[in-house]
Amino acid sequence: MHHALRARIAVILDVPRPGDRTSIWIDRLLIGLILLNVVAVVLESVVWLHLRWGHVFYTIELFSVVVFTIEYLLRVWSIVDNRWRAEYRHPLWGRLRFMRSPMAVIDLLAVLPFWLSMFIPLDLRFLRLVRLLRVLKLTRYSAATNLLFEVLREEGRVMGAAVFILFLLLMLMASATYYAENGVQPDAFANIPQAMWWAVVTVTTVGYGDVVPVTPLGKVLGAALGVLGVGMVALPAGILASGFSNALHRRQCDLRRDVEAALADGNIDPAERDRLAKRGQSLSLSEVDVADIIDEESSADAGRRAVCPHCGEPLS
Amino acid sequence: MHHALRARIAVILDVPRPGDRTSIWIDRLLIGLILLNVVAVVLESVVWLHLRWGHVFYTIELFSVVVFTIEYLLRVWSIVDNRWRAEYRHPLWGRLRFMRSPMAVIDLLAVLPFWLSMFIPLDLRFLRLVRLLRVLKLTRYSAATNLLFEVLREEGRVMGAAVFILFLLLMLMASATYYAENGVQPDAFANIPQAMWWAVVTVTTVGYGDVVPVTPLGKVLGAALGVLGVGMVALPAGILASGFSNALHRRQCDLRRDVEAALADGNIDPAERDRLAKRGQSLSLSEVDVADIIDEESSADAGRRAVCPHCGEPLS
Amino acid sequence: MHHALRARIAVILDVPRPGDRTSIWIDRLLIGLILLNVVAVVLESVVWLHLRWGHVFYTIELFSVVVFTIEYLLRVWSIVDNRWRAEYRHPLWGRLRFMRSPMAVIDLLAVLPFWLSMFIPLDLRFLRLVRLLRVLKLTRYSAATNLLFEVLREEGRVMGAAVFILFLLLMLMASATYYAENGVQPDAFANIPQAMWWAVVTVTTVGYGDVVPVTPLGKVLGAALGVLGVGMVALPAGILASGFSNALHRRQCDLRRDVEAALADGNIDPAERDRLAKRGQSLSLSEVDVADIIDEESSADAGRRAVCPHCGEPLS
Amino acid sequence: MHHALRARIAVILDVPRPGDRTSIWIDRLLIGLILLNVVAVVLESVVWLHLRWGHVFYTIELFSVVVFTIEYLLRVWSIVDNRWRAEYRHPLWGRLRFMRSPMAVIDLLAVLPFWLSMFIPLDLRFLRLVRLLRVLKLTRYSAATNLLFEVLREEGRVMGAAVFILFLLLMLMASATYYAENGVQPDAFANIPQAMWWAVVTVTTVGYGDVVPVTPLGKVLGAALGVLGVGMVALPAGILASGFSNALHRRQCDLRRDVEAALADGNIDPAERDRLAKRGQSLSLSEVDVADIIDEESSADAGRRAVCPHCGEPLS
Repeated sequence: MHHALRARIAVILDVPRPGDRTSIWIDRLLIGLILLNVVAVVLESVVWLHLRWGHVFYTIELFSVVVFTIEYLLRVWSIVDNRWRAEYRHPLWGRLRFMRSPMAVIDLLAVLPFWLSMFIPLDLRFLRLVRLLRVLKLTRYSAATNLLFEVLREEGRVMGAAVFILFLLLMLMASATYYAENGVQPDAFANIPQAMWWAVVTVTTVGYGDVVPVTPLGKVLGAALGVLGVGMVALPAGILASGFSNALHRRQCDLRRDVEAALADGNIDPAERDRLAKRGQSLSLSEVDVADIIDEESSADAGRRAVCPHCGEPLS
Repeated sequence: MHHALRARIAVILDVPRPGDRTSIWIDRLLIGLILLNVVAVVLESVVWLHLRWGHVFYTIELFSVVVFTIEYLLRVWSIVDNRWRAEYRHPLWGRLRFMRSPMAVIDLLAVLPFWLSMFIPLDLRFLRLVRLLRVLKLTRYSAATNLLFEVLREEGRVMGAAVFILFLLLMLMASATYYAENGVQPDAFANIPQAMWWAVVTVTTVGYGDVVPVTPLGKVLGAALGVLGVGMVALPAGILASGFSNALHRRQCDLRRDVEAALADGNIDPAERDRLAKRGQSLSLSEVDVADIIDEESSADAGRRAVCPHCGEPLS
Repeated sequence: MHHALRARIAVILDVPRPGDRTSIWIDRLLIGLILLNVVAVVLESVVWLHLRWGHVFYTIELFSVVVFTIEYLLRVWSIVDNRWRAEYRHPLWGRLRFMRSPMAVIDLLAVLPFWLSMFIPLDLRFLRLVRLLRVLKLTRYSAATNLLFEVLREEGRVMGAAVFILFLLLMLMASATYYAENGVQPDAFANIPQAMWWAVVTVTTVGYGDVVPVTPLGKVLGAALGVLGVGMVALPAGILASGFSNALHRRQCDLRRDVEAALADGNIDPAERDRLAKRGQSLSLSEVDVADIIDEESSADAGRRAVCPHCGEPLS
Repeated sequence: MHHALRARIAVILDVPRPGDRTSIWIDRLLIGLILLNVVAVVLESVVWLHLRWGHVFYTIELFSVVVFTIEYLLRVWSIVDNRWRAEYRHPLWGRLRFMRSPMAVIDLLAVLPFWLSMFIPLDLRFLRLVRLLRVLKLTRYSAATNLLFEVLREEGRVMGAAVFILFLLLMLMASATYYAENGVQPDAFANIPQAMWWAVVTVTTVGYGDVVPVTPLGKVLGAALGVLGVGMVALPAGILASGFSNALHRRQCDLRRDVEAALADGNIDPAERDRLAKRGQSLSLSEVDVADIIDEESSADAGRRAVCPHCGEPLS
């Protein structure tokens, strides 16, 4: 009985399976509570709202902390029954290992400061900042972020090289501009760190205008930084475009292999088609793409159902 | 007679077929009237033009409302004869269903406020804003927007994930900067919503300069937001590049299949070539692409039909 | 003799063939003179440089006008001998047709105002502006611009649709912001055209900061415009990425066909390799690409030199 | 003995081979020292840090110069034993040739000014700028930059054409705006160079706001420049996306060829798999890509080797 409950909770708190209404609703409630928290923290920072509705904000906070604490404890308790993660199976080490995982740390950070502030006086604005970290709990519920992170990880080294070159050029041009402007604007370009603030604002094309070069050489360097900044948007855009194209192609190949497996018996029945559609969705492929791949493979398969050119027997 | 008229109007108000000069001219007149309306609303907001030419603007408005009202009524009346949409066939329910479609709602919104303002006093500037919505009527006439929306819809989930991560980081960094700057600039960074205004202006690289961080920590966070903003241009650019590439490839495959069908009789006659060119245009493919695909398929077909020059047996 | 001279001038003024040193040097001199002109016009606009070195600038101008006038006359005179353009062959109509071509109009505009200003008094600053149009003469000498224009022309319709949607949204949001801000900032948001100036500055992420929304609604609309602006960079970037990819693929296919033709005799001799390298260059393909395509096709060709499966005779 | 030492130093200072711990640690120490130098130069430019910790900065500088000088001398001495570069083999000419290579020039520039300043008085801020050039020594250690430079070099001509058109339009629009604004803002738009500063700040979408057009014509030109700027980010992004896609495809083909060679004996043993993984890394391919290519080629190879299950004849 106690084990059945734990296993059920493990299922409910995990990514919901289609059809498991309890799990889906618990997820929605938790997402709603996180969003409510974010809105509350943001609004509470407005002085007159804080003065007028302070008790409401406090009630929301109290309720959220209790819910998130229970959620955290239930997750730690039930993780040993998680079907997908064999490494968390052990009653003690498995749970400790889970508590060290990024998502569990975020879950703990979401409630710990509140309980700590009961014993240690903590700065109110710092507490608010930490409460906002609860928004990171949302990453658990987004599936398409996987694709983003996969591409970013794969293109990481080339992106790193681009950032490295950007940093090199930024450094040199900020120092050169410091050298050019320091005499005329001793306050705005007082030292290289200040020149680097101006250089970052320029190269990212933000351009606040709080610091602007006035000497001809400074203006030439500023113009060069602006042009460089345009290139520095184009470079990662190009790298990522190639990365997404490649990832898409790979995912299409993955689906293609599944379609071929489903075609082993010569046709795709509705159940298989449904399973392939779900697989396509989990690969972040569009429905049109999935349909196209199934069509193509089906007609290619019809062609392949060939006979041996030597003895004439069917080949598969 | 009455039915023939209604059917003719349905054809005229629908997307014009090439050669139907009446339909093309009615379309051009309606597009012209919409553009005239936009120009009139924009110019009317300039005080001295309003004082001097007010009656002209009023005449344009009156004429437009009458034309657009007639257009709307004719559309509702004749929709039952539309050849492409079977769901609007029913005299009553079909028409009501049509009136709920986005384009019909825009058509109604374009004229309703004018008639309402005859009975209820409405704010003049609000009326102008609503009149500008007429510009949305133009979307009916643009064909290439389909491709845009198709790609945006397909890449929607990944784009959504990118926006979601952007929002998360924006939130956290705005709050951190609020924490860093609030003590020094209590007016500009009075609360988190105000810090978020600064953060959005920075991360989109707009950078008005009305709010600028002055503390070292605030500047580091601002620089990080600027760099993040550069990445946040590059990320959707990369996603969309992959999406457009994929859509183009799919459309080329679609055309390729049509070319193969046209080649079933062994050659492409001028009528077929004309039909394929139109098909390519409706798929937003360039003429060079269409010609290339026809060439390639034709020579591949010739290869498939080849016989050995020595023994005369078919080669594949 | 007179015909031989005209033909020689036609060759010299045309795009130079490799090895024709006279033609290459005349081109370099003309390019140098155009650049000298641009520098002169820019520097002459600085008051003290104009006062001190006015006579030098005048000498440069006089010399340039004489040279460009002679160039123009020689071009018109010799165009009938141009080998590539049959439509200019006729002594009278051919020359008139050439004079109507964009490049010839630019050549005329580069000198005409000077000669006109001898008879009619023209505004000095306007004259300078017209003299700067000489920079357009440079487009004659750049080859890679063709690829740019080809892609832009092919993707024109989709780009147009993107610009159209941008314009629609810009219009609506500028008007909404005018509605929101007009009461608080009656000067900065006096009318819709002024609100559109702010909207363009925001959506392009330039963000001067000369007009900034101050009401909460205005700030929300400004933030939305900024985010829209980020998307409006990403959209054309994605479209163009797909376009360049497609153009590159098409050009590689073009070269592949040439390599196959060169392989008809079974191998590629140095002269053929040289010709293919030049062809690759004129297609704006990189040398690595050209080498790769030649390698691939050569090894594929070795594979293709197959025999008929029926009679065993070699097939080509 | 002396030759063995020189050869060992040549190996240590070259790109380290995996497993050579001494070489890896020397590299890490040099990288650390370069980064320490950069931090020191940046911090030293802050006045109070310079006053208080001046002697520490001087010690760091002295130590760095000695280390970098020894490094430079060792590199020149041992370059004749470099295995990869036959052109540096000659005791005298090889060393001189090496000293003319970009990396060696940077190494020399990193220490020369210090030794020169012992004899000639040099401006302190200029010296700092030159010391920052040491950061360029880091480029020696980054591998992925090769891919960046390869793509930039290949797309160089098309990128150049884009920059050229940008420059043309910038020139013309700056001059036109100078013409429009000069009368109203004689200071901000005093001459064309000043108008070009405004135009660059606008077209790169930096938009400081130090110079802003106020006339209607100037604002229209500014809006056009902003839109042009958006296009000028999208154009290189598209070009580079196509370039990176092509480079990725080429590198995948390179690896594919290596996999095919490794498959010549019918299977890939662990040692071969290890070598292919390293090869993939040196081609900046992701691990997933490498695994996919090996899988695909293996199964394609299995297909090529298949025999008919009925008669045992090879199938292709």
